[in-house]
Amino acid sequence: MQKELIYMTKSIDFYFDVISPYSYIAYKRIKNDYSDNKIKFTLKPILLGGLHKLAGITAPAFNEFKMLNMKNDCELVAKKNNIDFQWNTNFPINSINIMRGFILIENQFKEKYLNGFFDAYWKDNNNLSKSENFLHILDNLGFDKANILNGIQNENIKDQLKKLTNEAFNKKVFGAPTFIVNNKIFWGQDRLEYAIEEFVN
Amino acid sequence: MQKELIYMTKSIDFYFDVISPYSYIAYKRIKNDYSDNKIKFTLKPILLGGLHKLAGITAPAFNEFKMLNMKNDCELVAKKNNIDFQWNTNFPINSINIMRGFILIENQFKEKYLNGFFDAYWKDNNNLSKSENFLHILDNLGFDKANILNGIQNENIKDQLKKLTNEAFNKKVFGAPTFIVNNKIFWGQDRLEYAIEEFVN
Repeated sequence: MQKELIYMTKSIDFYFDVISPYSYIAYKRIKNDYSDNKIKFTLKPILLGGLHKLAGITAPAFNEFKMLNMKNDCELVAKKNNIDFQWNTNFPINSINIMRGFILIENQFKEKYLNGFFDAYWKDNNNLSKSENFLHILDNLGFDKANILNGIQNENIKDQLKKLTNEAFNKKVFGAPTFIVNNKIFWGQDRLEYAIEEFVN
Repeated sequence: MQKELIYMTKSIDFYFDVISPYSYIAYKRIKNDYSDNKIKFTLKPILLGGLHKLAGITAPAFNEFKMLNMKNDCELVAKKNNIDFQWNTNFPINSINIMRGFILIENQFKEKYLNGFFDAYWKDNNNLSKSENFLHILDNLGFDKANILNGIQNENIKDQLKKLTNEAFNKKVFGAPTFIVNNKIFWGQDRLEYAIEEFVN
């Protein structure tokens, strides 16, 4: 009985930050290719900038050669996977408010919120560093923007994002997207298939 | 006629350093899966440490989290691709003599040399930082070790490796393995298929 219970609740932990283009691609691949609910994913929001700091990593966005490669590679990977994608001309930005908002939002609306902000940033080239754009997206998605703007200033929400980022780091997560299944870590959208194989077997 | 000549000499440039585990995996995948000569690869030796320095990149070997991930990931990717692989317990080492040797060796023996050193380092866990081990491998492969030990001190050989590394950097190569085909850059063994698709189409 115990074993069955564990099996039934098994899922692939999906660590992501909206700022990460490969997180967007992984998210869309999950939605497009694995949306039949046989494979369960658990959304694990983190602040990628904070995680990189903890791990002593310079993000590819801060090296011109890695940055150029990332842009070209994301465009190519998105195309091969039939995903609408547009490199954001204001990349990178601070994603802390977006990620705090994700934590604040009620469970039943988290997916709508996430999909909306992923699309705004990585499909529609929206400059989400401007607070009027952030508020506009909230509006478009049907959220109470005053309520959210107020809520993300709450110390409890701030602490939750910090805590989730620290928890990821303590599990040796150092980048996004990362998948964890059966305590095994798979880094990068390129390893989505490996994570799924690990889940299935 | 001109067009045909260009087509016939087209190849995928394969930038590598023996120190790079993903270069080893890519090399073996090329040998195992694409050895029918329909797809031509051109071997492009570089000194990865020098290239990273030029590009301002800290190698994953020098970050404990990336290092651990790289070990696990290489073992997994090798297994999925049926490649004999063993993480080298003396990773990283300075590969400059091995790479200079590759440049020194006559064309007809380069493959034998490369395969021998790749296997020694990434299959047999040989500590190639010790010169007696380096010499032993040369011996095993049937090379004249005194001749090679002398040749790799030649300024012309040293300059050639520097020049090839600089040339790679000038093409915006910043890591290994990298594939270039039709002036398009594909970084990482994960992009071997994309490079091949670009070559074929």
